Amino acid sequence: MSAALFEPAAQPMLRGKLIGVGTGPGDPELLTLKAVRAIENADVVAFFCKKGSKGNGRGIVESFIRPGTLEMPLVYPVTVESDKNGDDYRGAIAAFFDQSARDIAVHLDAGRSVAVLSEGDPLFYGSYMHLHLRLAPAYPAEVVAGITAMSGCWSMAGLPLVQGDDILSVLPGTLGEETLTERLSGTDGAVIMKVGRNLPKICRALERAGKLHSALYVERGTMENGHAMRLIERDASPAPYFSLVLVPGWKDRPVGETA
Amino acid sequence: MSAALFEPAAQPMLRGKLIGVGTGPGDPELLTLKAVRAIENADVVAFFCKKGSKGNGRGIVESFIRPGTLEMPLVYPVTVESDKNGDDYRGAIAAFFDQSARDIAVHLDAGRSVAVLSEGDPLFYGSYMHLHLRLAPAYPAEVVAGITAMSGCWSMAGLPLVQGDDILSVLPGTLGEETLTERLSGTDGAVIMKVGRNLPKICRALERAGKLHSALYVERGTMENGHAMRLIERDASPAPYFSLVLVPGWKDRPVGETA
Repeated sequence: MSAALFEPAAQPMLRGKLIGVGTGPGDPELLTLKAVRAIENADVVAFFCKKGSKGNGRGIVESFIRPGTLEMPLVYPVTVESDKNGDDYRGAIAAFFDQSARDIAVHLDAGRSVAVLSEGDPLFYGSYMHLHLRLAPAYPAEVVAGITAMSGCWSMAGLPLVQGDDILSVLPGTLGEETLTERLSGTDGAVIMKVGRNLPKICRALERAGKLHSALYVERGTMENGHAMRLIERDASPAPYFSLVLVPGWKDRPVGETA
Repeated sequence: MSAALFEPAAQPMLRGKLIGVGTGPGDPELLTLKAVRAIENADVVAFFCKKGSKGNGRGIVESFIRPGTLEMPLVYPVTVESDKNGDDYRGAIAAFFDQSARDIAVHLDAGRSVAVLSEGDPLFYGSYMHLHLRLAPAYPAEVVAGITAMSGCWSMAGLPLVQGDDILSVLPGTLGEETLTERLSGTDGAVIMKVGRNLPKICRALERAGKLHSALYVERGTMENGHAMRLIERDASPAPYFSLVLVPGWKDRPVGETA
């Protein structure tokens, strides 16, 4: 029995630790040793998911969750996908993150460590960031880096992306065609995310930037049934959510160094 | 006994596999499970190093190399650092990669698998790319993604980097001040690499782009003695090679979501 147990005030030493754990792009083998240990040792494993789904992040780490570990699904509010910029959506999603942070804080206050799963890397376009902002100022927090989706994709495709003094631009496919064209013209390597229904516009911008022929389309990189192909060889059907377009740089590739 | 054994031509099934293995940014715990298995199972572990050094990549994975594994240091030719754009340097380094590829091919031809260590991620500014271009067309090759240095740094610092429709720019500090200023003005998040002696110029460009106050300086992220601080609080002494400047994005951070 420690004397600290009798202290009436806040007991920061007894607070549980918040750990944002990157689960990587899909292949469980791409978890880091640190992520595996964090999941195995956590009192609570929390994960984002859609209603009726078990969550992609949880699926990746499933075999590493000890039996008896408390699982905590954080279920996104049902929203109309097409109105993500509306005030209703913003309000609902902010309230959801507020509530999720409060629910996690209950465990942290009770001295339980909470591992929050985050697909890819937690601080790179991850939902975990919303919880980190709310909880890290008040609780001990640690972030375990994860393999990003883009890294998983160019590795699966065996595509050297950037080298030396190259500039790399990570661009959302939601940008307008003019902006996309300008950005693609002014960079060496590029990764285009949020492809989906933006694919025809992305192709036009790449064509205008003179980079369509070198671009690669990767679908479900590092997941089962993942595949890569030259973008110009792909048909015009809509792309799924888990797809990326990669534009290789390496402007200083020495003469003679060709694949 | 398979009929293929009696075929007189090249026997691709007997060739060893080339594996580019990302070792991550420094902490051995940030190796992926896949990287550990690749290193444990490789017949040969090759790694780049400077003369008189054991190599950073090898140091990271040291505890996972099985006793008896053949080790293959690829020693960079001694060069004058300041003349990296000269023809002599380009010629020497190209000859070095040619020779390294030939040396590795001897093992692959003998049916031995060769894991080539690559700090960070193999296809993201890694020396392994030079070997991949030369060998992957002729031999079975696989790339194991690794945690990038930038990911290790923003995780160590607990800095949410980019979210939603943010644009991320990865910029070499070797760019001119005007170009740097323009690039920093036109992006949401940014990672500036190759800081070193370019630090004063980088600070001026950040100041002009209105982003100096939010920038973070990270030294030796995820290594022992690594640390992060606000860039404006750092003195003007030259920065070491293993340092990065991070500029957080998240332009759509909802009101009230502050750290």
